[in-house]
Amino acid sequence: MRPLETLLGRWSSGRGPLHLLLATRLRQLIDDGLLPPGAPIPPDRVLAKKLAIGRTTVVAAYEVLRQEGRIVRRQGSGTRVAPAALSSTRRAPDGGGRNPLFLHLLEPPDDVRLLTCAAPLAPPPQLIEAHANALPRLAALSDDIGYHPAGIWSVRRAVAERYTRRGLPTRPEEILVVTGAQQALSLLARLLVAPGDSVVVEAPTYSGALDVFRDGAAALRPVPAGDVGAYTEAMDEYRPAITYLVPTFHNPTGSVLGRFERNAIVRTAKELDLVVIEDDVPAELSFHDDEPPPLAAGGGENVIQVGSLSKVVWGGFRIGWVRAAPALVNRLARLKAIHDLGSDTIAQLAAVELLPNLDEIRAERVARLREQHDHLCAELREHLPSWRFEPARGGQTLWVRLPSGDATSYAQVALRHGVAVLPGVHFDPNGGSQDALRVPFVYPKADLSDAVRRLARAWSSYSGGRGERDSLHAIVV
Amino acid sequence: MRPLETLLGRWSSGRGPLHLLLATRLRQLIDDGLLPPGAPIPPDRVLAKKLAIGRTTVVAAYEVLRQEGRIVRRQGSGTRVAPAALSSTRRAPDGGGRNPLFLHLLEPPDDVRLLTCAAPLAPPPQLIEAHANALPRLAALSDDIGYHPAGIWSVRRAVAERYTRRGLPTRPEEILVVTGAQQALSLLARLLVAPGDSVVVEAPTYSGALDVFRDGAAALRPVPAGDVGAYTEAMDEYRPAITYLVPTFHNPTGSVLGRFERNAIVRTAKELDLVVIEDDVPAELSFHDDEPPPLAAGGGENVIQVGSLSKVVWGGFRIGWVRAAPALVNRLARLKAIHDLGSDTIAQLAAVELLPNLDEIRAERVARLREQHDHLCAELREHLPSWRFEPARGGQTLWVRLPSGDATSYAQVALRHGVAVLPGVHFDPNGGSQDALRVPFVYPKADLSDAVRRLARAWSSYSGGRGERDSLHAIVV
Repeated sequence: MRPLETLLGRWSSGRGPLHLLLATRLRQLIDDGLLPPGAPIPPDRVLAKKLAIGRTTVVAAYEVLRQEGRIVRRQGSGTRVAPAALSSTRRAPDGGGRNPLFLHLLEPPDDVRLLTCAAPLAPPPQLIEAHANALPRLAALSDDIGYHPAGIWSVRRAVAERYTRRGLPTRPEEILVVTGAQQALSLLARLLVAPGDSVVVEAPTYSGALDVFRDGAAALRPVPAGDVGAYTEAMDEYRPAITYLVPTFHNPTGSVLGRFERNAIVRTAKELDLVVIEDDVPAELSFHDDEPPPLAAGGGENVIQVGSLSKVVWGGFRIGWVRAAPALVNRLARLKAIHDLGSDTIAQLAAVELLPNLDEIRAERVARLREQHDHLCAELREHLPSWRFEPARGGQTLWVRLPSGDATSYAQVALRHGVAVLPGVHFDPNGGSQDALRVPFVYPKADLSDAVRRLARAWSSYSGGRGERDSLHAIVV
Repeated sequence: MRPLETLLGRWSSGRGPLHLLLATRLRQLIDDGLLPPGAPIPPDRVLAKKLAIGRTTVVAAYEVLRQEGRIVRRQGSGTRVAPAALSSTRRAPDGGGRNPLFLHLLEPPDDVRLLTCAAPLAPPPQLIEAHANALPRLAALSDDIGYHPAGIWSVRRAVAERYTRRGLPTRPEEILVVTGAQQALSLLARLLVAPGDSVVVEAPTYSGALDVFRDGAAALRPVPAGDVGAYTEAMDEYRPAITYLVPTFHNPTGSVLGRFERNAIVRTAKELDLVVIEDDVPAELSFHDDEPPPLAAGGGENVIQVGSLSKVVWGGFRIGWVRAAPALVNRLARLKAIHDLGSDTIAQLAAVELLPNLDEIRAERVARLREQHDHLCAELREHLPSWRFEPARGGQTLWVRLPSGDATSYAQVALRHGVAVLPGVHFDPNGGSQDALRVPFVYPKADLSDAVRRLARAWSSYSGGRGERDSLHAIVV
């Protein structure tokens, strides 16, 4: 292997704080496999000398990567790239390398039951129907070269109408159509975040958002999910370029931010003139009808919403959107024109067919999710009574706390028992949530039953027979 | 309007040379309309003082924007944002603001015949058929959450097989599927170009590529299109992060780089270990069968190809690709996972249906283009005998030289005569090609005839009756 200082190349030619630039370049090397799992990383003192930079810069960069779970530092054995199992460094054949969710989907180990996805497992029949209905519209197009950077007007109108029906009056000019909510976050980060800028995120949160902000060399400022005092303090202290929140059926915890908390965040954003991004993707998967209104309802231009059809319909149907002030939508559209000229036209025409009837798909999907949720809760209570969780009010995932041990080690044991589940650390910008697992209930009931039995056997093995006793204690505490 | 130094904000927090950072920020302000057409720009001396930077930095930034046609500097009246007509600052309702191609499509003036598009004007019936055939495959999917950052394997295989059939043996691992060739360029620039890095481009060239490289704050190094000595000298002098070429049916000139030139570029790239991007998008639109092999045929890992179905099939069908070494494809896929998680699945399934039968669509399209090309040439020769052009050997556009005057002023006159045509300066990173127009022949023959008549009336008006005499003189010279 070439020496690290050679691999690093021109790492410092970027902008922003040096430690973030160094961390960003090291992260790339790890994710690209140029620094393979287990590879030694030079002591901070040594690397600092070779790069002719301060030791505190190297220490800070290593700390960022340690919190991300990309490197491990152990007394005596020094610093190393994290081992491969369940880490983000495993190679995937079609490239979802950084994110373990994709790894497990794309390279599923044999005979392993996957509990890693939080997305529909197949397209619903209405999606096929919507495409079939869109084809005559496609055939009827003329004098249209097909490039629509902000989205086809009829889609923008249909998305706006849906927001309006949900109680959030919206004009088509306020909607930008994008290739899934992931692209919405990417464009917003590119427009609003300069390297080194602060971005307030929840801990834990959607890991795909962390990927976007890290790629932009943002300085992440994590606050505990649901702790509204921490949000507003961080907004005041850091004046972040973006405060990113998943307020309704939070991914991964499934929780819902209350009205008081929402009002406080919107008020702070207005007072300090800050941008809040409300990730609205899971918000339609509600098991009840008593959810608070979206942040955007009272947020004015301070709250930007991102949404998509990927959780209600299917992830392979890459239609998402941004809801923002028209001037910002125009700027985002120009950026989108540079980066891909616009999203697929046929998908957009299908969205026009689908959006007016989305409630039907949503009702079916929510009914199934709720049934699977209840089943998963019952199975967990029966077979893993020591595990703690709050039943979800919507969404697709349970956030489970282990009574002892750490979830990353347990997940490796679980993999040997034939079930893949994601430890909380993958969703936590702090490297926290060490005791947590995300357990999605997007699977059929029989699969969930089987998976819970495997999890229970793994837990029994992991906790060495002591687990349940320890954990009973832990519950009482 | 707020003072310019306020609008500029934290322009210098970027990376790369200061004059490029200043130019990049000013470009955004102009394109976003915050500096409207005609707005005065402070003298370099004044702005330099306000920003506490050297005057040469401001002069260099203004020069970049002047070359791009975004600002005009006139003795006596100072520096101003370029006027709106045919400039890139006009607002488009769905956001293709920066690129005048989109402007004219999205906001066509009444009664104006557009000669601005170089893309199919409607989807061919085979595209509808391919989608219809893909729907059963979509319905049959199970255990697939639909996120495939590198592309669905069957598409990668189909693209690889098509390259192999065209004489360029390719494995599926060497193909990344993206949302059109524009996204291919964007991802490659993001991965390979740091701000301030040199990028060698042709003058003129595809303006969408210039947008991508400018957005990445690259230092553009233009060389005259077709001048192979200039390419290899620039590669040697600047050691560019990317050398970007459209070697076959060049957009906009329609020319084809010869075998000798191709070999020289590939050899230089290998000797200096530099990356060449071969834009392969127009290459399949050949009127004859004697085109030289692609650069990539002898280029090894030094030549990366980008391609798409947008010119052969339709631009609204957003399927493009990168052909590169598997390690680079994996790195690009990780980047794509961060930015949009993958392209639309249904479009990809349709591409699988379409690719094996692409020759049929291509043959139909080329036959029509060739007929329209010949018709356009004949009409131009008859009605505008002073205009000079080389008949194209393929592609979609003629590159026409005016015998006198400048094409930007003429294009404004033409617009008043009811025809919109793009002046060469829009394709020229130098602000050169002042005497050129790009005239696409993607339109039906009757439309081309009508457009040429309008162009002729405009020319007569523009050249004040003297035009044809002057130009006859110019031809002789």
